[in-house]
Amino acid sequence: MEHTLAALAAFLGGELKGPPSLVIRGINSLDRATSQEIAFVAHKRYLAKAEASRAAALIVSPEWAHLPRPLIIVPQPYLAYARLAALFAPAPPRRVGVSPQAFLGQGVQVGREVAVAPLAFVGDRVRLGDRVTIGPGCVLADDVVIGPDTLLHPNVTVLERCQIGARCLIHSGVVIGSDGYGFVPTPEGHVKIPQLGAVVIEDDVEIGANCTIDRGALEETRLGRGAKLDNLVHLAHNVSVGEHSLLVAQVGVAGSTRLGKRVVLGGQAGVVGHIELGDGVQVAAQAGVVSSVPPGQVVAGSPAIPHKEALRVAGHLRKLPELAQRVKELERKLAELTRLLAKE
Amino acid sequence: MEHTLAALAAFLGGELKGPPSLVIRGINSLDRATSQEIAFVAHKRYLAKAEASRAAALIVSPEWAHLPRPLIIVPQPYLAYARLAALFAPAPPRRVGVSPQAFLGQGVQVGREVAVAPLAFVGDRVRLGDRVTIGPGCVLADDVVIGPDTLLHPNVTVLERCQIGARCLIHSGVVIGSDGYGFVPTPEGHVKIPQLGAVVIEDDVEIGANCTIDRGALEETRLGRGAKLDNLVHLAHNVSVGEHSLLVAQVGVAGSTRLGKRVVLGGQAGVVGHIELGDGVQVAAQAGVVSSVPPGQVVAGSPAIPHKEALRVAGHLRKLPELAQRVKELERKLAELTRLLAKE
Amino acid sequence: MEHTLAALAAFLGGELKGPPSLVIRGINSLDRATSQEIAFVAHKRYLAKAEASRAAALIVSPEWAHLPRPLIIVPQPYLAYARLAALFAPAPPRRVGVSPQAFLGQGVQVGREVAVAPLAFVGDRVRLGDRVTIGPGCVLADDVVIGPDTLLHPNVTVLERCQIGARCLIHSGVVIGSDGYGFVPTPEGHVKIPQLGAVVIEDDVEIGANCTIDRGALEETRLGRGAKLDNLVHLAHNVSVGEHSLLVAQVGVAGSTRLGKRVVLGGQAGVVGHIELGDGVQVAAQAGVVSSVPPGQVVAGSPAIPHKEALRVAGHLRKLPELAQRVKELERKLAELTRLLAKE
Repeated sequence: MEHTLAALAAFLGGELKGPPSLVIRGINSLDRATSQEIAFVAHKRYLAKAEASRAAALIVSPEWAHLPRPLIIVPQPYLAYARLAALFAPAPPRRVGVSPQAFLGQGVQVGREVAVAPLAFVGDRVRLGDRVTIGPGCVLADDVVIGPDTLLHPNVTVLERCQIGARCLIHSGVVIGSDGYGFVPTPEGHVKIPQLGAVVIEDDVEIGANCTIDRGALEETRLGRGAKLDNLVHLAHNVSVGEHSLLVAQVGVAGSTRLGKRVVLGGQAGVVGHIELGDGVQVAAQAGVVSSVPPGQVVAGSPAIPHKEALRVAGHLRKLPELAQRVKELERKLAELTRLLAKE
Repeated sequence: MEHTLAALAAFLGGELKGPPSLVIRGINSLDRATSQEIAFVAHKRYLAKAEASRAAALIVSPEWAHLPRPLIIVPQPYLAYARLAALFAPAPPRRVGVSPQAFLGQGVQVGREVAVAPLAFVGDRVRLGDRVTIGPGCVLADDVVIGPDTLLHPNVTVLERCQIGARCLIHSGVVIGSDGYGFVPTPEGHVKIPQLGAVVIEDDVEIGANCTIDRGALEETRLGRGAKLDNLVHLAHNVSVGEHSLLVAQVGVAGSTRLGKRVVLGGQAGVVGHIELGDGVQVAAQAGVVSSVPPGQVVAGSPAIPHKEALRVAGHLRKLPELAQRVKELERKLAELTRLLAKE
Repeated sequence: MEHTLAALAAFLGGELKGPPSLVIRGINSLDRATSQEIAFVAHKRYLAKAEASRAAALIVSPEWAHLPRPLIIVPQPYLAYARLAALFAPAPPRRVGVSPQAFLGQGVQVGREVAVAPLAFVGDRVRLGDRVTIGPGCVLADDVVIGPDTLLHPNVTVLERCQIGARCLIHSGVVIGSDGYGFVPTPEGHVKIPQLGAVVIEDDVEIGANCTIDRGALEETRLGRGAKLDNLVHLAHNVSVGEHSLLVAQVGVAGSTRLGKRVVLGGQAGVVGHIELGDGVQVAAQAGVVSSVPPGQVVAGSPAIPHKEALRVAGHLRKLPELAQRVKELERKLAELTRLLAKE
């Protein structure tokens, strides 16, 4: 695939500085770009690399418009990079049609230009929207619904009655609709509470490899539009994730907790059940959130407290041995003073 | 499926208050129940919702027997809910028989009414008990044994020689019998210790999605009867989990550690290897247990200490900046006092 | 399988003490070894067990050469155990050839004595080295390369263009080459940054069950020769793991971080992105590493600090309630003293 520099500038809505007919065959990092590839400068700390780069052209913000190189000048080079990378990305391999080596249940509805790979399993009454891609090894249980343009990478499991919206991207090993973890303790053992709800995933959601999303007990577990989950994230039954929230790798959210819109959970953070995190809440990596958090607040630590307070506590914590030493010294001095005064 | 209120009361062994012939078609939450569904009141904080609910009838404990609604009165409404949910739950889809699109090795023993789905792999000499269900995409390696009435959801992997008891429920993506993590360091690299043991899972165990249970090095990794694992739990080689223990999501237990009966490990907790947690031990979420814990003790924190102590420490920790300020003030005052006295 | 004691001594390069023709049929723990099996003594705390063991013979270090049993004396009994276990281990089940029930894409290159199991998927232009084993349910996407003698257990997923070296061992449920987690936030939602790099896994690497290794954004994610990953480990895009590093279960490493050679990350530890851990760095379990660590350093805690300091801080932390009490007492005494002096 190749594009002229002028075509790329037009695609990005950016300002062209340099030979319009220059041919660009790919995008790469400043270090690795060849003389046929374009690279981008997202921060001034990369300027030295930019000067040393062999790239054919650079995408820069207006402040670096003076660089003596073929340039495309845009307000947000990082966003431009994302868009150009999509342009140059190899088209995902899609073999349109339902493979004869897939298993197709009864009453399946298949949209236009759907690709169901060999060794995929599609249960009864499943509905696949237009241009859906189902990778090899995927299992869609009965009554699953997948919206148009959604891509399931290989070995994804979607259990009975779960629904996935349009333009979603589900990575390999993800399990959607496993039973929520609910038991009633009795002297004879734990009695299972059947999990009768489902999982509803709205449009434009991305779910990282080997995540597990449990179905609701009676109601639904829900991921809002545009939410993005990294790998190995666990969502328990009845959890609700707000639109455009970001859950970084290995996060766990316990049952019935509600995350607002644009919430960010850092890697390995945990959130207890039955609480609410308001819109825009940010949780630091490895934090343990044990109570509801009002909108916009940033929290850290385990148990989590406001981030600034957590930083202050952490700073003092590291000096705790010294503080203990100072207290010991105070005790010594005070005892000495008291002894002296007693003598007088 | 439908049942009369009288039939449900009889099924639950509860007291009926209301029209015996009232037809109930399902169970739901107080919020969502329709006029054909029954709901339950598990706690007084849900009384307002109960009053506002459109449910046809309610399951309540004796203290709410006065509610002016059709009722079934039972000692434990939550347990009654679990039992009714099982009654109303859609029967899991089972296509009895071994699918011609499954792979069946040599010498496989298949019990009565077994269901092996398309695209499942069953290795040589595997033994499947009566009414076992093997989902699509499951792989049972050679010499695996699965007890009667056990259900493997899609895409479960059970490696060579591992054994699963009766009435177990294994969720998608689970791996049973992966190699334990054992190496001997040498100057040339780490020499692998072959893992020759297996995994033995007793009856009535449930294992959540994408858990990993390693096989023993020489002996067995064992899950006791009635143990329940949430999603993404990791059990290392030679671990032993006692009967009716509960391991919440993303817990990790290192090699050779023994958990007693009815142990509870909170979400994301970690337990080091070669220690013992006594019967009834409870570990708080995100705790890090680094030494053996006597029976019945509750621990929290990383490194874990008794829970009450951990709470006290956490309370003081948050006030640490203030404590440091008080020490500073003490130092100032003591210095001033000392100076004053020196002048005298 | 059986070997004489003399043959085993020769295999291990150890000193034989006892009947050369004694027949040994397996290796087991001291507790479980039968009179036809050999066991090993790795530490003096196992001496009592050794004396009580029914084992036919023992592998010991020179200091226990006086034990009145048939012995093989070696400098490192634990290493000898690893080697003998490999000798006695049942050969992994390999059905050489490409199963007619596997899916094979176009232009696949298959080495000698390759075993591709039923229900495995091998995409276009995949290259499989000699003696490669691909388990049932594995998916190798287009252009994947697998080096000689590498074993993929069942249900492994390797995405487009990823490469695995020679003699690697990949456990079930592993996902290699899922997209890195990269988005550009905009008012309309998060714009995905296409992940164009791949994953390169060098020789002799072992990856535990259900690990996830993301592909690089533009460059590669790389695991160095001899690295060993336990289960459920997450490596983000562009991470680089040095040779012979050990990553224990449930570790997470964020994007672009570089681990040196022989780094050890304890279970559930997390490492932030864009930092460097020098050769030989050791990170304690559950630690959270937030800045680069120089070679050879041992760190612990979250945020991580040098291990010795962390121990000291943890010790003082547990005594914090007592310290607060002592400060209160100091305040009381000082106030009393001040009052007394004011009266004089």
